[in-house]
Amino acid sequence: MIASGSAASTEAPVSLITGGAGFVAANLIPRLLNEGRRVVCVDNLSRGRLSYLDKHATSLGFAFVRADLSDRDECVAAFGAASLAGTLDEVWHLAANSDIPAGVADPDVDHKDTFRTTFEVLRAMRLHGVRTLHFASSSAVYGDMGELALVETAGPLLPISNYGAMKLASEAQISAASETHLDRAHLFRFPNVVGVPATHGVIVDFVRKLVEDPERLAVLGNGSQRKAYLHVSDLVDAMLWIRSRASQRRGVFNIGPVDDGVEVRWIAAKVVEAMAPNARIEFGSGNRGWVGDVPRFRYDTRLVGSLGWKPRLDSASAVLRAIAEVVEQERPNANV
Amino acid sequence: MIASGSAASTEAPVSLITGGAGFVAANLIPRLLNEGRRVVCVDNLSRGRLSYLDKHATSLGFAFVRADLSDRDECVAAFGAASLAGTLDEVWHLAANSDIPAGVADPDVDHKDTFRTTFEVLRAMRLHGVRTLHFASSSAVYGDMGELALVETAGPLLPISNYGAMKLASEAQISAASETHLDRAHLFRFPNVVGVPATHGVIVDFVRKLVEDPERLAVLGNGSQRKAYLHVSDLVDAMLWIRSRASQRRGVFNIGPVDDGVEVRWIAAKVVEAMAPNARIEFGSGNRGWVGDVPRFRYDTRLVGSLGWKPRLDSASAVLRAIAEVVEQERPNANV
Repeated sequence: MIASGSAASTEAPVSLITGGAGFVAANLIPRLLNEGRRVVCVDNLSRGRLSYLDKHATSLGFAFVRADLSDRDECVAAFGAASLAGTLDEVWHLAANSDIPAGVADPDVDHKDTFRTTFEVLRAMRLHGVRTLHFASSSAVYGDMGELALVETAGPLLPISNYGAMKLASEAQISAASETHLDRAHLFRFPNVVGVPATHGVIVDFVRKLVEDPERLAVLGNGSQRKAYLHVSDLVDAMLWIRSRASQRRGVFNIGPVDDGVEVRWIAAKVVEAMAPNARIEFGSGNRGWVGDVPRFRYDTRLVGSLGWKPRLDSASAVLRAIAEVVEQERPNANV
Repeated sequence: MIASGSAASTEAPVSLITGGAGFVAANLIPRLLNEGRRVVCVDNLSRGRLSYLDKHATSLGFAFVRADLSDRDECVAAFGAASLAGTLDEVWHLAANSDIPAGVADPDVDHKDTFRTTFEVLRAMRLHGVRTLHFASSSAVYGDMGELALVETAGPLLPISNYGAMKLASEAQISAASETHLDRAHLFRFPNVVGVPATHGVIVDFVRKLVEDPERLAVLGNGSQRKAYLHVSDLVDAMLWIRSRASQRRGVFNIGPVDDGVEVRWIAAKVVEAMAPNARIEFGSGNRGWVGDVPRFRYDTRLVGSLGWKPRLDSASAVLRAIAEVVEQERPNANV
C-alpha cells in the first residue's frame, strides 16, 4: 500500500541492483546514493552477505529485498517492491554464480544463478517498463584466445567454463532485448577485480591459507599465470563513467587496467610479505589453477580509454591495496 | 532389455539427431544411413513432421523417438533408447525453435526449444559418454554488423533476435562442455537455407500466398533485403565435409555460398514467374521484414573454403531449385 501524500517521494529515481549483497554492489551502492538516487538491492543471499549492507541499512533511500531472481514470481515481486520506492529507471544486473569451479562441476549452478537470473530480470524489466540495463559481464566470455589480445571486436567467443558461457549467454539475451524493450544496455566485461568485501579469488585464498597455516602457502599451478587486476573502486568508476558518456544504445566494454598484469607468484610473495614473512611458498605444476582457468591474456581496454577513462591503480598497485584490505578483513585484530 | 545374441548389432555406430523430424534432418538422415550408421531421430514434433521420415521408416538401422529434449527425464530417456541401437558416438543437435517472430513475441519459446534443449543434450551426452557434437548454429549470432563482413573472427556478437541469442548461448555452452566432456564440437553457422521439406521461410511464404490468391503477392518490406541462400543439399555436404576434415577439437564454421546473395524482390519475381505470371507484386516499406530480421549482410566462408569445400549452387541457383521443389511440395497436382 502506498501512503497518501507520498507523491513527491515516488518521483525519486530508483536503481535496482541484483546481486545487491555482493562485493561489487557494496562498492556501487554509496556512489548511487550520492547521486541522490534510491537504491533497492535484491539478493538471494546464497553468496552475498547482509553484513555488507550494514552501513547503508539506515540510509534514507536504501532498501533490501531478499529474492531468488531465477524464480519468475520472486523476480517480478522484487521489481514490484522496487517500483514502490519511486521511478525505477535502471537496473544493475550483478547477480551471478561467482564460483567458477562449482559451475564446472555442475552446469546447473551457472545456468540458474547466471543465465536464468538474466532471463527473468529482462522479462521483469519488460513488464515494469524499465529500459536501462547495466550488466556485469566478464573477460571469461573470450575463453582462451592464446596470444591474441582480448578486444571487443574479437571472435569467435569460445568460453572454456560454464561461468564464461552463461555470461556470454546473458550478453546475447540482453542484446536481443535491446532490440525490443531496452533503450540502453551496457555490457561491462570485468577483468579480475580485487578489493573488499571479498569472498573469493586468489588474494582471499592466499590470506586464508596463511591464517590457517602461517608456515606454508600452497599455490595452485606453477605460479606463472599472469593476469591483470583492477581494484573495485576503479571498476565502479569505469561503469559510472561509461554510463554517463557512452552514446551507444547497446555497447560492450572491456574494463581493466592498461598494463599486462602480474604473476600469481608475485601475489603469493606479497601476501606472504604482508602476513607471514617466514612462510614457505609451495608451487604446483602446470600453468592453470583449475579447469576453466585461462593461464594468461592481454586485455585491450582502448575502447573505454577512448571515452577518456583510465584506472587510478595499475595491476600491481591494485593487488597491493587489496592485500592490505583483505588482510584487515580477515584478521580484524591483527597488527597490520 | 537387450535380447541375447545381439552383441554384433550393438557394435554398430549410432548417430542421434535432435530435431530429427525437421527440414535439415530429413536431408541428413540418408547420408548417415549410407555411411552404414544407425540413425536415431529425436523430435518433440512441435514443428517437425513424421511424414518427413516416411521413406526411412522401414530402413534397417533407423529409429524415431518422440521426446521433448528440454525436459531432463525425457532427454536422458531418449539417449538411453539410442544407446540400445549400438555404439552411440555422435550427436547432431539440430533441434531448435525455427520461428523467429514467435521467439521475439515470447522469449520463453527460444529459451525452451533452443537453449534448454542444448543444455539437456550436453548433460545427457556427459551421462552417456558421447563425446562428439555437431551443432546447427546460425548467422543470426552475428546480429546486425552493418557493412562489416560476417567472419568467424568478428565480434562483438550482438544478436538482435532471441533466436540468434539462444543460438549464441548454445554455442557458449558447447564451448565450455568441450573443455570437460566433449572431444569434438563443430559449431556450424548456417546461412538462410532453402530446399524441401520446407515449413517456413521466404519461398514457402510466397508460394503459399500465391496458392491462396494467385492475383497478388504482398511482400514484407520494400524487397531490397539481400541475403545469401544455400541449398540444403550443399549444407549437408558442408557439414559432412567439415566432420571428416577439420582438425580442431572445437571449431566454428560459417557455411554458405560465396556470392553476395539475391534480393527479396528477385525471389518474389521468380516465384510469380513459376506460379502465377500475371500476379501483381505489392511491396511494403522499410528494409526489414520483421523485428530481428537483418536487412543485408556479407557472409565470409573462407574458413570452410580453406578445407577445400565449395557449394555446388550459388544463391540464385539454390533459390531457383528450391522454388521448383517448394512449388511441387505445395501443389502436388499442379503442372509445374
